[in-house]
Amino acid sequence: MNPILDFPDRLAPLSDFLAGALQAVQQIFDGQLRSDLPAVAKLCRHVEHYRGKMLRPTLSVVCGIAAHPDAAATGDFGTLVTREHYVIAAVCEMVHMATLVHDDVLDDADTRRRGDTVNRLYGNEAAVILGDYLIASAYHLCSTVARPTSVGAGAGYTHPSITIARASVVTCAGELLQLHHRDDYSIDEATYFEVVAGKTAALIAAAAELGAAQSGASAEVAAVMADFGRKLGIAFQIQDDLLDLTGKESIVGKSVGKDLEKGKITLPFIHHLANADARTRGRTLLLLESSAAGPHAGADLHAALMHTGSIAYARGIAERIVREAEEGLDVLPATPARDMLHAMAQAVVHRAY
Amino acid sequence: MNPILDFPDRLAPLSDFLAGALQAVQQIFDGQLRSDLPAVAKLCRHVEHYRGKMLRPTLSVVCGIAAHPDAAATGDFGTLVTREHYVIAAVCEMVHMATLVHDDVLDDADTRRRGDTVNRLYGNEAAVILGDYLIASAYHLCSTVARPTSVGAGAGYTHPSITIARASVVTCAGELLQLHHRDDYSIDEATYFEVVAGKTAALIAAAAELGAAQSGASAEVAAVMADFGRKLGIAFQIQDDLLDLTGKESIVGKSVGKDLEKGKITLPFIHHLANADARTRGRTLLLLESSAAGPHAGADLHAALMHTGSIAYARGIAERIVREAEEGLDVLPATPARDMLHAMAQAVVHRAY
Repeated sequence: MNPILDFPDRLAPLSDFLAGALQAVQQIFDGQLRSDLPAVAKLCRHVEHYRGKMLRPTLSVVCGIAAHPDAAATGDFGTLVTREHYVIAAVCEMVHMATLVHDDVLDDADTRRRGDTVNRLYGNEAAVILGDYLIASAYHLCSTVARPTSVGAGAGYTHPSITIARASVVTCAGELLQLHHRDDYSIDEATYFEVVAGKTAALIAAAAELGAAQSGASAEVAAVMADFGRKLGIAFQIQDDLLDLTGKESIVGKSVGKDLEKGKITLPFIHHLANADARTRGRTLLLLESSAAGPHAGADLHAALMHTGSIAYARGIAERIVREAEEGLDVLPATPARDMLHAMAQAVVHRAY
Repeated sequence: MNPILDFPDRLAPLSDFLAGALQAVQQIFDGQLRSDLPAVAKLCRHVEHYRGKMLRPTLSVVCGIAAHPDAAATGDFGTLVTREHYVIAAVCEMVHMATLVHDDVLDDADTRRRGDTVNRLYGNEAAVILGDYLIASAYHLCSTVARPTSVGAGAGYTHPSITIARASVVTCAGELLQLHHRDDYSIDEATYFEVVAGKTAALIAAAAELGAAQSGASAEVAAVMADFGRKLGIAFQIQDDLLDLTGKESIVGKSVGKDLEKGKITLPFIHHLANADARTRGRTLLLLESSAAGPHAGADLHAALMHTGSIAYARGIAERIVREAEEGLDVLPATPARDMLHAMAQAVVHRAY
């Protein structure tokens, strides 16, 4: 069912382990959000419904196994990861949930994971504060992480709080950049990638890096894992943008067609506007202007993108980035965990939701 | 000019030192928010205009001096506080700024510190993301704080990140509780104080506690400082609520009359509704209903509150809480820094803005 977790049979032992690990992550997540205040507890329970692919926690745990110095020596995954990995995984998911809650306010979205959004049910104010509550809870949880016992005092260990906070800063900067370029039909690919590297990839990179670092991986290997996560994140966002253009709400599980409505010009459009002849470009710009007022121009726009091969172009870019991400995995020993990272990378660009 | 910083002459040496310290705090603050992205830098520059009383940074630095184990032995304040105190002070101010930016979105406020709010100038979306950016930047800055050199490895030192994050969680919980009780004319004092202890006092308590802890104060003294900050914060909020009722926008420097408009029932109203006779209460409830639609009922409501002595009652509560806060300072040695904490406590309830 879940394309991020639906792995080939030979990965079954690791996949089974992972299922248990993600349950532990969920318990930590839910425990951290427990509140004596009914008004707070109710909102937090709603967030549990947002739980989806668990991409970031999965990445933290699998990178924690794949990049562990003893990865090649043992198939007993439980000896490679610790409770601290699960805490880090829960932190990444909680920061992600906070951005979802705020994103839904910014996007005026009604539907998420096939359910009503917090802003729809309880209003924008509750959603803004709940997002802040989730961020604060995530930082609180993160600040309790103990350094890995395998790391010596002089090993230049960086506390996860620094990495998470830096990733959050970059995430927000990416979102502010995106907002700045709203309705900007002359936005170029470089700016698009800067937005995406921020708003989506920074936290995924942190999830991968922190999993490895918590296993006592060398700074070099942790950096490779961060790069793997970053590339996965960029490809993930391109795929997300494609699903917003071509997906069906009933399959994607959240509102689609929102990007144009909110003036977000994504990779297929950037390619199309740069490569269409003047007349086609003019017609597309007219369609874009009108689509900002509603989704009725969707079919015409889709046809225009097909005409210049722009959807295939964006898909091709995502696949190339995933290939590059996978090449980086060569520094790791050949293990089931490394295989799973390959499978996750492929799933990112071949998912329908 | 500034009632929080306008101290008696005998405190001039400390006051002068403090002026320099706050400049150092501002430099750290501004440096942390520097961005290569013009779209981000522009918004961050706007936040610099929000800088007001600097209550939280002042408290961190003065508590850092007053609660230092060597406080009584030296008048050379520069030997008592370190750059880490200024970093903590900047962190507290940045978290505070983030809540201001989000509060202005929630309150639909147009004016702050006599200037336009971010949401007014750039829209709610920019303000929501900017608030997130400030929070993330604050956590990033906080996670770089080094433990005080005077604290031994086994001293049970708690990293400021934990304290700041916990305070933020409590702040948000207080705001969610407030939102839950919007337009709730039967809200009681206990709930009001729970809201205020969260939304305002938790961060002020953290600012005071962290200043002391960073000086290597004992856990007991740090807890007393936290309690001092918490009480100061509660009194501060009561005074803020009174200014929203009785102040003039030109003096207060931000929108007034917003509490009723946003359905926030503050202490004077809680007292009034609990103590007025049935007929007066009925008339007040009618006025409250109509004032939710606009400020035209202001004068009548004010008269009603005067009738039951409810404004004087709230002012009396604030003054009593400040007195209790000041009593706690007895654990500190008699120094100019302790005197300054007394002066700050008095200023909180005697300010007009």
